[in-house]
Amino acid sequence: MEDGVDHLAFERNKAQFDVEDMKIIWAGSRQDFELSDRISRLVASDPAFRKDDRTTLDRKELFKNTLRKAAYAWKRINELRLNEQEAYKLRSFVDQPAFTDLHWGMFVPAIQGQGTDEQQQKWLPLAYRMQIIGCYAQTELGHGSNVQGLETTATFDPKTDEFVIHSPTLTSSKWWPGGLGKISTHAVAYARLIIGGEDHGVHGFIVQLRSLDDHLPLPGITIGDIGMKFGNAAYNTMDNGVLRFDHGFTGYQRRKIFCIATRYSAVRRQFGSHNGGLETQVIDYKTQQARLFPLLASAYAFRFVGGWLKWLYMDVTERLQANDFSTLPEAHACTAGLKSLTTTATADGIEECRKLCGGHGYLCSSGLPELFAVYVPACTYEGDNVVLLLQVARHLMKTVSQLGSGNKPVGTTAYMARVEQLMQYHSDVEKAEDWLKPNVVLEAFEARASRMSVACAQNLSKFANPEEGFQELAADLVDAAVAHCQLIVVSKFIEKLQQDIPGKGVKKQLEVLCSIYALFLLHKHLGDFLSTGCINPKQGSLASEQLRNLYSQVRPNAIALVDAFNYTDHYLGSILGRYDGNVYPKLYEEAWKDPLNDSVVPDGFKEYIQPMLKQQLRNARL
Amino acid sequence: MEDGVDHLAFERNKAQFDVEDMKIIWAGSRQDFELSDRISRLVASDPAFRKDDRTTLDRKELFKNTLRKAAYAWKRINELRLNEQEAYKLRSFVDQPAFTDLHWGMFVPAIQGQGTDEQQQKWLPLAYRMQIIGCYAQTELGHGSNVQGLETTATFDPKTDEFVIHSPTLTSSKWWPGGLGKISTHAVAYARLIIGGEDHGVHGFIVQLRSLDDHLPLPGITIGDIGMKFGNAAYNTMDNGVLRFDHGFTGYQRRKIFCIATRYSAVRRQFGSHNGGLETQVIDYKTQQARLFPLLASAYAFRFVGGWLKWLYMDVTERLQANDFSTLPEAHACTAGLKSLTTTATADGIEECRKLCGGHGYLCSSGLPELFAVYVPACTYEGDNVVLLLQVARHLMKTVSQLGSGNKPVGTTAYMARVEQLMQYHSDVEKAEDWLKPNVVLEAFEARASRMSVACAQNLSKFANPEEGFQELAADLVDAAVAHCQLIVVSKFIEKLQQDIPGKGVKKQLEVLCSIYALFLLHKHLGDFLSTGCINPKQGSLASEQLRNLYSQVRPNAIALVDAFNYTDHYLGSILGRYDGNVYPKLYEEAWKDPLNDSVVPDGFKEYIQPMLKQQLRNARL
Repeated sequence: MEDGVDHLAFERNKAQFDVEDMKIIWAGSRQDFELSDRISRLVASDPAFRKDDRTTLDRKELFKNTLRKAAYAWKRINELRLNEQEAYKLRSFVDQPAFTDLHWGMFVPAIQGQGTDEQQQKWLPLAYRMQIIGCYAQTELGHGSNVQGLETTATFDPKTDEFVIHSPTLTSSKWWPGGLGKISTHAVAYARLIIGGEDHGVHGFIVQLRSLDDHLPLPGITIGDIGMKFGNAAYNTMDNGVLRFDHGFTGYQRRKIFCIATRYSAVRRQFGSHNGGLETQVIDYKTQQARLFPLLASAYAFRFVGGWLKWLYMDVTERLQANDFSTLPEAHACTAGLKSLTTTATADGIEECRKLCGGHGYLCSSGLPELFAVYVPACTYEGDNVVLLLQVARHLMKTVSQLGSGNKPVGTTAYMARVEQLMQYHSDVEKAEDWLKPNVVLEAFEARASRMSVACAQNLSKFANPEEGFQELAADLVDAAVAHCQLIVVSKFIEKLQQDIPGKGVKKQLEVLCSIYALFLLHKHLGDFLSTGCINPKQGSLASEQLRNLYSQVRPNAIALVDAFNYTDHYLGSILGRYDGNVYPKLYEEAWKDPLNDSVVPDGFKEYIQPMLKQQLRNARL
Repeated sequence: MEDGVDHLAFERNKAQFDVEDMKIIWAGSRQDFELSDRISRLVASDPAFRKDDRTTLDRKELFKNTLRKAAYAWKRINELRLNEQEAYKLRSFVDQPAFTDLHWGMFVPAIQGQGTDEQQQKWLPLAYRMQIIGCYAQTELGHGSNVQGLETTATFDPKTDEFVIHSPTLTSSKWWPGGLGKISTHAVAYARLIIGGEDHGVHGFIVQLRSLDDHLPLPGITIGDIGMKFGNAAYNTMDNGVLRFDHGFTGYQRRKIFCIATRYSAVRRQFGSHNGGLETQVIDYKTQQARLFPLLASAYAFRFVGGWLKWLYMDVTERLQANDFSTLPEAHACTAGLKSLTTTATADGIEECRKLCGGHGYLCSSGLPELFAVYVPACTYEGDNVVLLLQVARHLMKTVSQLGSGNKPVGTTAYMARVEQLMQYHSDVEKAEDWLKPNVVLEAFEARASRMSVACAQNLSKFANPEEGFQELAADLVDAAVAHCQLIVVSKFIEKLQQDIPGKGVKKQLEVLCSIYALFLLHKHLGDFLSTGCINPKQGSLASEQLRNLYSQVRPNAIALVDAFNYTDHYLGSILGRYDGNVYPKLYEEAWKDPLNDSVVPDGFKEYIQPMLKQQLRNARL
């Protein structure tokens, strides 16, 4: 609370749960909470990390500003002797995409995970001290998610015992890698390994790109920035690069939006004034609630499924170490599907929240355009979301086909073992409150998902060529995969609520959010539930009725539920979402900082406007 | 075709209709086509109107660039003695939001429509010659779509016979008006008229803002730009303004996106290579077709409903002149609803198209970020889309309540007269092809819309206080309004096809697109159709089957169908959407123009990166 007055205190007093306890639940553990809280305040209180001026900088200024922050962050990390986890948190709270994200997030892990012992001993100490800076050069101009289509070659030269890296075509130029354009000295570059004329598929190679003396590209290497990207600052802080080899030789956050939209919905008033009183708070409109609260519920749902994914990752890793590959295909499908589901829903949700903030959501000072621009690429990078869902669908079809064989479905597909029972299922909901029972919801989602998968499998079996069938029915297969992934999120939220959850009123709020998340999906995909016969129209309208009740229950807690994210105003970066709700005076104040307001009469007026106003045009039109 | 090679010729040869005839249909008439074609080429061929450098300009440069173009456009309009319609077209093909849009689009029409004879004689000649420049100052910092909530006052002072305009509070500051910030000399400002202490509601006043000599704000007027907005160039070319009166005195397009996504989907190849052959064109994937072709169909659907809206506007105007007010409420509801439906669908569609272009859609040189940023505010300006839909719902509830009274529903609500029959309706579709019959589709949409309205009316009647019921059921009411508006679009598309449509294969293509538009909506809102019992699940899946067939039919014609929009590459402003499909070399070429590539070693390297690479840090971390 920067000015000392809390304009949302009346909202916070309404909350029916202990927000401090919810913060722990949100963070995952007390330890996680304390780490994030400490580091985020450290960043927020340091003027060197200010970010409110970003959208007025031109590209070069913005880029230089990013370099300065990265260097300063590294200095602080060393001065404060932060450990790896703390350093990671600090970089994420600086909240400005930079080459360091790729160095620490992709380059170092690639060497750790895929490097030989020799490579690790040579490169890791240099990379840990940032004496070299690396990036991850995979994507090519003509080739995105399809790694097997890469064209760059690495040809082994037995005479020199070296690999010759080459970009044979324009479309084989590396294109997009972050940090590549202007900064990285090294890269893990992916290329087809050619030995004795034979293609051994795609492998990663550690390649030096620039001289460590003068930073100029090494001979045979053409390299540059690929130009402006979406958004006013957003990823324009990053030097996404283009790279061509001419026989060159060699040896993770974006839930802010819900916070902003919820707070501003409580501040903003429109219509409904009687007798000169205050207008109605926008958050009290049912239409606003019906759009905002499902998004808020999804923020919590995705948080919990994210926690569960960490467990899954550890579980798979342990199994692999014990040579148990049995859960790997299911875990892969599950991860791909959840990545697709959550990033698509979040990108759509951010844009929806921006609209829920009305016209002011379009101003950069609202922080919302920035968030949108930073978030949307998540839907394409690391694999297009539709491609990922088709991978899930393939796994589901395989699971269905093996049901009779005694090959028991595992993990998140375990419900398929009850397929006969689920094919007979009819929901027994009779009144709106029945929809609050976790088992009732869970069974409806299981029945819908399994019936959609089975229907796809049956339709596929009509094709003589299964691959042709898969292409032809791709849209239905994607729908079946979405149904399966939504079931996973709903079931993990329900599982979370079966645990012991301390704190006054906390569990109750989470139960409300869980019901909202599930019933909103049911409402949105009503066609699926009705056409598969899992529920009847009457039960569908009881779900909508229950949803309205739930919105009323969440209403007094809405502000406290986003306070529980524990975001500093610095991190949030939004005037509309300010903790203290003091929106309008700050918007007004901010406007005057725009460079256009440096002078009363703008540059260009004398040349272009005055002659028009003073005109004695020869060919006057009227 | 700028380089003379047409990389999409193989696609254009596939088309099964005459694209030149389709261009006439798309444009509305031969005359409209010729006008647009002539003016768009005039603009595209004039280097003074180049726009490919916009995203690299900083705010001040961008703004000055806009002033220059506006002045040059005015010069050309006068030199060429263009008439009003030609001048309007020229400004729109310049394709850079500017203060002139508000001057010609809002200020002049406001005086024409609402000014007294005296005001018109005084101000219009000056405005026509641009000797004054005006804007439209309605929205306030705390008040958007709710005009009746405006706080600015205009108090009549009988001593001086003048109005004193005053902004009593911070939230009463005018906020957002385009052209206000730095350029307009005058405004039509909306304020509560106060005479003798009595409030006479909101009225418009013509106010001078700035001196015609030195362009400085007049005494009592504080004025400035409201700062950076969403997008890299987008509306940052516009000086949206903030304005406070301290007792101031006074006397008295966007269908480009579909074109880009369709063309690039034919150029782009991913996966599916066998034996070293070319990868599959992305447009051949069913998942891509299922997302792209409904958007293409909606572009045509909205084009035709737009043409019909022009007729509606003329019809209402003629009736009003003859004192016939009978169709006014229906026409108002219809216009509001269609504005909401088409702008929401288009904004969502643009973002969907951006995703369909993969990662490169995130680059500014793709033109897509710009289009999105320019388009999205349409969903909030001129009335929030949900607020508009609630107005439609109010009209629908009134129509339902009067059904028994002999008050016959008119215009787009005429189908409600057959409500008894529609409540009994069950679709008789038995095979997929039945869904191609216009009447089958139309009746299903009519039955769905009328049943949703009737259900809302029945639920509303259970509330003792109707207004409370309206608030509580707002989300359902919005759904009913959407169903009604979708019916309008479908029915106008069908009506269009009942006309004589010349040209080889043209009508056939439009029939395919009309079916796609309708069946896609049916698929998307399957829950509505099933829960109201209009169709059964089997009929729903027959519709999906038919939709897949239709996608295959539209496939060979897709490129020619966007060619029919007749957009120049200048207007399109997208490398991905180039007419000649020569995407990759041009993307590559464009990247090198980014200011970051001016120098090989970037500014900031010496200060911030080199010390890190060369570091001998005292507190080294490892």
